[in-house]
Amino acid sequence: MRVALLAGGTGGAKLAAGMQEEIGSDLAVIANTGDDVEALGVHVSPDPDLVTYWLNGEIDAERGWGIRDDTFTVFERLKRLGAPSWFGLSDRDLAACLYRREFLDAGGRPTDAQAQIARGLGVEARVLPMTDAPVRTQVITAAGPRALQEYLILDGGRPRVEGVRLEGIEAAEPTPEALAAIAEAEAVVIGPSNPVISIGPILAIPGMREAIAASPAPVLAVSPYVAGAVVKGPTDRFMEGIGRPTTAAGVASLYAGLIDAMVVDEGDPDPPPAEVPTLAAQTLMEGAAGRVRLARTVLDYAATLAP
Amino acid sequence: MRVALLAGGTGGAKLAAGMQEEIGSDLAVIANTGDDVEALGVHVSPDPDLVTYWLNGEIDAERGWGIRDDTFTVFERLKRLGAPSWFGLSDRDLAACLYRREFLDAGGRPTDAQAQIARGLGVEARVLPMTDAPVRTQVITAAGPRALQEYLILDGGRPRVEGVRLEGIEAAEPTPEALAAIAEAEAVVIGPSNPVISIGPILAIPGMREAIAASPAPVLAVSPYVAGAVVKGPTDRFMEGIGRPTTAAGVASLYAGLIDAMVVDEGDPDPPPAEVPTLAAQTLMEGAAGRVRLARTVLDYAATLAP
Repeated sequence: MRVALLAGGTGGAKLAAGMQEEIGSDLAVIANTGDDVEALGVHVSPDPDLVTYWLNGEIDAERGWGIRDDTFTVFERLKRLGAPSWFGLSDRDLAACLYRREFLDAGGRPTDAQAQIARGLGVEARVLPMTDAPVRTQVITAAGPRALQEYLILDGGRPRVEGVRLEGIEAAEPTPEALAAIAEAEAVVIGPSNPVISIGPILAIPGMREAIAASPAPVLAVSPYVAGAVVKGPTDRFMEGIGRPTTAAGVASLYAGLIDAMVVDEGDPDPPPAEVPTLAAQTLMEGAAGRVRLARTVLDYAATLAP
Repeated sequence: MRVALLAGGTGGAKLAAGMQEEIGSDLAVIANTGDDVEALGVHVSPDPDLVTYWLNGEIDAERGWGIRDDTFTVFERLKRLGAPSWFGLSDRDLAACLYRREFLDAGGRPTDAQAQIARGLGVEARVLPMTDAPVRTQVITAAGPRALQEYLILDGGRPRVEGVRLEGIEAAEPTPEALAAIAEAEAVVIGPSNPVISIGPILAIPGMREAIAASPAPVLAVSPYVAGAVVKGPTDRFMEGIGRPTTAAGVASLYAGLIDAMVVDEGDPDPPPAEVPTLAAQTLMEGAAGRVRLARTVLDYAATLAP
């Protein structure tokens, strides 16, 4: 089954890893690039790279991000030279971001840079940036707008979120590769990532919702809420910030009109409204087996929805 | 004694290390930037960095270049992603070059980048790029012009040299810092580096010879020939390429009209002509003691020449 999976941070990336086990190169992950940031002289693309390291098995699975057992030699040295140190990068992680910067500076597309990175690192599935245009997610707080990584790292994700602004989104368009992946998909899956800052930017690209709606494939969302709480990350802060309930029902409200069905946790206290076909399942992805199990659940459910 | 030392590769850098032991922050090294190259997405400045690592003691002294016991994690990773692999950089070395690129991209001067690198790495002397303008040394061979690093690394320094071209030299000027170091010097010393591709570019900058000539300080050159042969590097190839004898006399001919005196090896078979005051001494720099001994010899000799 060919799948186009929309993903941002850890939850979506873990589901991608499980799906790759099941369908290999039939998986295309469309990844959020609103978190991209220039730091330390390199171009960091946190979500596409996170997905890549989950897919090639180098991820520090216990921590949920970063490359396992990587060193920080260059970063430590840069700090000694006086470089800003708020954004840390391990050596192998930095290498990809340096490669990307050089690739982009030479006029290349983010899509081709990411494809080259994924290929070099032995990833079977495709990892597709949502757009080749620069989109930067900004968090509106009482103190003013903050770039997302600055909000998460420098502010510790603490200030109350009053809204989200996606800089550059009007001029962005989905890549031909992302559009093709959606058009050819037999299922479009919205991964269990932060609906506001991970999935939100993908769906906000002009033409993206339309492309998904035009696909004959069923569209499923997997709720990031497990037993009523998020496993990791500041999802609640952002759901509150845009005035939605911090529940699966709140997530469903964001995807209304776009999804055909939803997979929620079997322990969810606030499932989507009755008009959304919903499968309640065990959605916590513990270990490789847990990731594959959820992937299998989603794929099997999608098969029952096929037109 | 305040010294301005012109230096390029290993010989000049070793003498710089010896001089720093003797006069500390009274030493200013004016370093060749004609070898600079963009590689792996960073800005490599081989001679200033080589001098820096000799001065802060991190140099792999046995090999004569590179940082001792450094790792190649980022470089190996870049190769895996498909980056060109002809120019290798170890992790700490790459960090400085990445820092420099970011510094320059932000509109900073090479002089300030190098000062920051040297400060961060605990160097006592000043390391001054010869100019802030881009100068690129090209080697003319039968097969056409080659960038210097490509000639040395890709061609293995083998093709016959027919000449040297210094791209950008007409528009270059000495930095205010280099001019001040020369004006304030009590001795200007031309280090035992390759006279054609290390010292040549420094002296070719419009205004540099004039600044040295205008200084009241004595100007001494230290011959890179030890017992009639170069210790390391392709000096002979380049001396032949521009039609000069591969001897101390050949070196003297290049500095004619500029130097007041010369230090040559006591075993030199072809010393400078009689009109050049010459001190014959042991010029091989073996270990830290050898570097300090030659530095002391040069400083003492300069003191006898002071106006």
